[in-house]
Amino acid sequence: MTVTLQDIRDAAKQIAGVAHRTPVIRSRTLDALAGAEVFLKAENLQRVGAFKFRGAYNAISRLTPQQLERGIAAYSSGNHAQAVALSARELGSTAVIVMPADTPASKLAAVRGYGAEIITYDRYTGDREAIGAELAASRGLTLIPPYEHEHVIAGQGTAALELLDETGDLDALVVPVGGGGLIAGSATAAKGLQPGIRVVGVEPQAGDDTKRSLAAGERVTIEVPRTIADGQAASIPGEMTFSINKRLVDEIVLVSDDEIRDALRFAADRLKLVMEPSGASGLAALLTGKLSPVPARIGVIISGGNVGAARLAELLA
Amino acid sequence: MTVTLQDIRDAAKQIAGVAHRTPVIRSRTLDALAGAEVFLKAENLQRVGAFKFRGAYNAISRLTPQQLERGIAAYSSGNHAQAVALSARELGSTAVIVMPADTPASKLAAVRGYGAEIITYDRYTGDREAIGAELAASRGLTLIPPYEHEHVIAGQGTAALELLDETGDLDALVVPVGGGGLIAGSATAAKGLQPGIRVVGVEPQAGDDTKRSLAAGERVTIEVPRTIADGQAASIPGEMTFSINKRLVDEIVLVSDDEIRDALRFAADRLKLVMEPSGASGLAALLTGKLSPVPARIGVIISGGNVGAARLAELLA
Repeated sequence: MTVTLQDIRDAAKQIAGVAHRTPVIRSRTLDALAGAEVFLKAENLQRVGAFKFRGAYNAISRLTPQQLERGIAAYSSGNHAQAVALSARELGSTAVIVMPADTPASKLAAVRGYGAEIITYDRYTGDREAIGAELAASRGLTLIPPYEHEHVIAGQGTAALELLDETGDLDALVVPVGGGGLIAGSATAAKGLQPGIRVVGVEPQAGDDTKRSLAAGERVTIEVPRTIADGQAASIPGEMTFSINKRLVDEIVLVSDDEIRDALRFAADRLKLVMEPSGASGLAALLTGKLSPVPARIGVIISGGNVGAARLAELLA
Repeated sequence: MTVTLQDIRDAAKQIAGVAHRTPVIRSRTLDALAGAEVFLKAENLQRVGAFKFRGAYNAISRLTPQQLERGIAAYSSGNHAQAVALSARELGSTAVIVMPADTPASKLAAVRGYGAEIITYDRYTGDREAIGAELAASRGLTLIPPYEHEHVIAGQGTAALELLDETGDLDALVVPVGGGGLIAGSATAAKGLQPGIRVVGVEPQAGDDTKRSLAAGERVTIEVPRTIADGQAASIPGEMTFSINKRLVDEIVLVSDDEIRDALRFAADRLKLVMEPSGASGLAALLTGKLSPVPARIGVIISGGNVGAARLAELLA
């Protein structure tokens, strides 16, 4: 069971006209600092503010009328929650999202704003996957996981497909890594189109589960990471995503929280873009020279921008 | 002496491939709040971070080889300084910019970074226009004023030309007003293409010189405005710009500093865009329902994004 370039092309058709075709941003200042031609795929400008909409919509739009009638379930503290809520609404369905009780009020409000029902749990004692599975079973809902799902992974890959369609040949593609869905889809698209391209994942220093897992050749569990990059705070790679990534990802580089913070400042100062910390980790890798040797033409996926004005003010101060 | 649609089309050819064709940003959340279809022309993503590059480049690129050889002069504390500095460098010329001694170090550094020479003056006792004219005369430089210049105005109008080219018919075009160059060029383009379009200028409450001047039928001088929208802190409209604007601008609406601040927060939260206060005044007008009746399809020029990460943090806090 894997994902192919054709699956990603199918996903691109499925989400056309619903997801945004996000712009590719260039900056001569960035090119000079990176010593390369850099192409930023601005998924912070995607609907719900992150690439997650691609995968959620691709998965949910393929359900049967009966499944849509009964409704969707998901667990997420972040962008996948909003992506599922909005996709369900767009498709005339309903969604129930399992979220930690201490989720910021603004994120709860955003999910409710898309019409979803929220069930909260205690993140220190509860098991969100078990709660989600139990909820789905008892109410007859279809569970859409954040990355362990072929249609979700194929949907995320459309970000890279669009990027390469616009830029032509690239020497490297740099992608933030959390659970591994974005990079699994993106690597599938990129290597399918350009087998020689170098696919580089970026993790926060404290959340290097995929880097360790690739080194070990098997999935390694780390302590729950403490990092400002909350979208990349996974403690173990997904099973399905890791099976793809160990085949297609060439290397993982790590960035510190301070390096991410500097990238957020650069994005605000020079690019006029708001990124969330996870979304800026690829940019941080470039600005700190983590790629060696430096490829000539580099695509970078900016994965999201849901940080909130108040939190952004803290991070930039 | 005026500016025509043809002048703006010529300017578009002149800046093609040098200035960015900036993206037009849509947001369903914004549409819902404004009760209209809104199209944001993101000039904060323009080179040097503001529309000013369009006019400066259009003007400087038309100088003779002899003029370029001798060099350019300009006075500006803001985006026009960077626009002239970069345009001169791109055209193999040099620039001398007259700037207030208390200009933030980051802005001085940006102008120097584009290779320009800076001459500072005391903004409380000096007269920048006189200093600029004297400098130009003594050194044989060509002075490029920030808005009182046909090629500058025609260049700024290319922002509206591109916007309307992408959106098709609009019912209204909303444009921030400082010295009046952006709206003069944009109104010329918009009414040239769609004579029925409603052109709405936006000024900060404290800087309503153009609104008062339009009401009076002649240029009115106000006290130097105190507003966070530093790019709109003009105390009198330009002569050339006013002669165009009194003919083509339908109305001016005013926004308070607090309303601009809310718009900056909205831009960061929902649009993931960094705007400078002046750049967000059109958005502020929409979010606060200043247009009545509300047009169905509205274009808004987001004029710039040069605020700096530290200052942005203060404004968002």
